[in-house]
Amino acid sequence: MHSFIAPVDDILFSLTNIACANELESWNNELAQDILRHFAAFAEQEIAPLNEKGDRYGCILKNGRVLMPEGYTDTYAKLAADGWQGLTAPEQFGGMGISPVLGGAVSEIFSGANHAMQMVCNLVPGAMSTLLRFGTDTQQRTWVPKLAAGEALSTMCLTEPGAGSDLSRIQTRAENLDNRWSISGEKIFISGGDQDMSKDILHLVLARTGSSDEGIKGLSLFLCSKLEAGNTISIDRIESKLGLHASPTCHMTFNETPAEMIGNEGGGLHAMFTIMNHARIDVALQGVAHAARAHAIALAYARERKQGKNSTGQDAFLVEHADVQRMLNEQHKLSVGARAMAHITLVELEKGDRPELAEFLTPLCKFFCTEAGIRSADLGIQILGGYGYLDEYQISQIWRDARITSIYEGANGIHYLALATRGLTAYGGAPARAFDALVGEVTNDEHVMDMRSHWRELCSRVSGAEHPAAHAYEFAQTSGQLFFNAVLAKIESNT
Amino acid sequence: MHSFIAPVDDILFSLTNIACANELESWNNELAQDILRHFAAFAEQEIAPLNEKGDRYGCILKNGRVLMPEGYTDTYAKLAADGWQGLTAPEQFGGMGISPVLGGAVSEIFSGANHAMQMVCNLVPGAMSTLLRFGTDTQQRTWVPKLAAGEALSTMCLTEPGAGSDLSRIQTRAENLDNRWSISGEKIFISGGDQDMSKDILHLVLARTGSSDEGIKGLSLFLCSKLEAGNTISIDRIESKLGLHASPTCHMTFNETPAEMIGNEGGGLHAMFTIMNHARIDVALQGVAHAARAHAIALAYARERKQGKNSTGQDAFLVEHADVQRMLNEQHKLSVGARAMAHITLVELEKGDRPELAEFLTPLCKFFCTEAGIRSADLGIQILGGYGYLDEYQISQIWRDARITSIYEGANGIHYLALATRGLTAYGGAPARAFDALVGEVTNDEHVMDMRSHWRELCSRVSGAEHPAAHAYEFAQTSGQLFFNAVLAKIESNT
Repeated sequence: MHSFIAPVDDILFSLTNIACANELESWNNELAQDILRHFAAFAEQEIAPLNEKGDRYGCILKNGRVLMPEGYTDTYAKLAADGWQGLTAPEQFGGMGISPVLGGAVSEIFSGANHAMQMVCNLVPGAMSTLLRFGTDTQQRTWVPKLAAGEALSTMCLTEPGAGSDLSRIQTRAENLDNRWSISGEKIFISGGDQDMSKDILHLVLARTGSSDEGIKGLSLFLCSKLEAGNTISIDRIESKLGLHASPTCHMTFNETPAEMIGNEGGGLHAMFTIMNHARIDVALQGVAHAARAHAIALAYARERKQGKNSTGQDAFLVEHADVQRMLNEQHKLSVGARAMAHITLVELEKGDRPELAEFLTPLCKFFCTEAGIRSADLGIQILGGYGYLDEYQISQIWRDARITSIYEGANGIHYLALATRGLTAYGGAPARAFDALVGEVTNDEHVMDMRSHWRELCSRVSGAEHPAAHAYEFAQTSGQLFFNAVLAKIESNT
Repeated sequence: MHSFIAPVDDILFSLTNIACANELESWNNELAQDILRHFAAFAEQEIAPLNEKGDRYGCILKNGRVLMPEGYTDTYAKLAADGWQGLTAPEQFGGMGISPVLGGAVSEIFSGANHAMQMVCNLVPGAMSTLLRFGTDTQQRTWVPKLAAGEALSTMCLTEPGAGSDLSRIQTRAENLDNRWSISGEKIFISGGDQDMSKDILHLVLARTGSSDEGIKGLSLFLCSKLEAGNTISIDRIESKLGLHASPTCHMTFNETPAEMIGNEGGGLHAMFTIMNHARIDVALQGVAHAARAHAIALAYARERKQGKNSTGQDAFLVEHADVQRMLNEQHKLSVGARAMAHITLVELEKGDRPELAEFLTPLCKFFCTEAGIRSADLGIQILGGYGYLDEYQISQIWRDARITSIYEGANGIHYLALATRGLTAYGGAPARAFDALVGEVTNDEHVMDMRSHWRELCSRVSGAEHPAAHAYEFAQTSGQLFFNAVLAKIESNT
């Protein structure tokens, strides 16, 4: 067991030296250091120690209510009392008004310490953005302060038994009676669908107001309060799953649950994308967290474990073996590279002047960073050998927890396709062109420029293909490798 | 949940059409079909249904004895009564005298149905080979019939707290008093170190007769009987691990346990290699089993799950999506390719006229087939999406069970190194030359011949390198891909 240590210096280096966050108007270097060091201390002392216990005991469904593992409720209360849930909320609503870039850095630390708990707490920033963008004044005044104070946590209720990545199949219905909406239907795979940490839960629910023939156009977004809903929401089951045992994945039924519409009728998917885009970058950061944590554990282990002899005939440590070095080195590159990719994307999103670039980078980071996390965890298991297969070092827990990240928030295949279709063709190909330019801004390394030439040829080939879907994987992976190698070149020249 | 169906036809096709097992003297086609169909029926009806239960409940250590999960003891009794444990044992010792090639095919089916149970039962063929090669007449007459009848199962007691892949650190001592040996020391990671399925357990123990300065030369191989040992063997702990929950991984202590030496003093490692080489091919076949089982589950799921619309606007099944097809296709290639590689190796081992080739193929199959199994399981999880992350479809159990295969029987890094050192340089480079020739015997496909040219260049580069270890991964993976593509070309031209 190696205790969690938040990689604060690595994160700060990446934000300022690689992603140039310090060029943002909102940036304040001292504040950033302060916030990260404070959160790191809290994560190391309070959040991380719950991680293994949460994995072992999981959540329990008792009398229709979800009970979190021991310790989670107390630690959440401290998290909320210290204001961390309101980090990025506007000050007028009781938040700290901190940049989402810094919010992302905090989120990585949270995920590294305890992905399951982060998962339950961190759908909040996306919910707040959605309310601030599409909600009425009353909705904003009612909910944003509660979310910021940690009185309420939030969920995203999209998936249904017959509708996973394909939201056109959603059957949950919203009825309007006497100017009040009520929602009925089944939702599955709802993270934090119930828990006993926050007083209330804000459910954001995608439901059908039009007929089912209308597909996604008949969907609207609604909010429901757990407290107001009373027994019109039932938690039918929590899923038994590979990992994230401390994040209750709920199968729930809405039965004439009182609801309010957010935004326009028929605009549900559009509103939902605000939450989803936030969630996607957040998931990418979960991948970064896993990559870094798995590397830290493996490196510590390899430095203390003796194995064989070195070339001078003396006892060698595991870290001296070439194949172990290969794996540690790959883990290290994945960690720092994926982090830099996510940070550059966060900075672009905050700048906001190249939305077409964000459209390319968001799916790219989602799949690349999550695959980096899974790969690094897998390498970690291999480096620890037999001990990696035991529960003792928690490295296999990282793999099990990480494994969901390439599935949720859009299975990675959906993101490959997004790059190979919208990424190449939307606005006359602007996203891919902006990405091309970004690579040149990041580095002029010769090897990377060769990769870019190859990538450009691939762009022509795929955008002219009869079935771009058949090339989506290749195009996405090639794009990911290009960006990855570009940031690595920049990191190398900065160290 | 998709019930296990043994891929009997695929196995027979691979054995006869690809690996040319029918050219072996021992081969009898009707017998092979008969045996595989009988075992398949037993595996489907009796062994496979225990797999999920075993994973969920695991083994229990109670009053110093290991209890297997419910149902295992009864099914083992049937397995033994039907003579399956004696499949490859000589008829003079009560076995069926079947070729190890066919034994391997049975083993794949066993592992596909229930890897954990197979693991506990299938160290027996290696133990029998070791006794037949190094044991005295008395040892053979005492133990081989018991193993063949299933009265005894066997273990390999190598690893110690400070000695994993590095056996020179073994500290367990054997003392000779009044012409009787007694063993004292701690052994860890002992699969089936205790269980309640067989009456007795034959422990094959590597222990030190010389001083610790002698490294591996001071090691001898011993046998101990659980029944005779009484309380001189204690089971201190069973490990809590990622998968294989129905295979008890024991931490055990020998305390002046009566033992007999097998073979010569100081020849322990040499004798142990007989078991280990058998075990390595068996582990490769576990990988094949995982690859095939994960593919079968994913294919069945993708064919019945609806997702989105197809190009004609009708409801599509998951299997129609390009990215899902890519993953299913990769799983399929991994399954049939890895199986063919293992079968060719088994046939070479039985022929026995190119031992230098077997020396190349054994480590190659160990790492390639185990990585194929893990990769296919991982793809299976991805294809099932959210459902892949749940326990329900057992696909994540396959991944968890498979994950040990690239660690045990020599971590894969050890096998990369074996190829890049002994494979290239032993007997003046004979193993690599024999492999080169084999590729040409398997196919003359142009693309594969190009790969072989590239591989030959790599051979020169690596064998001339100052630190071959630094190139071991690249050399091993390139060799694996060459063999894999060669067998795929042969399979393609045969179907």
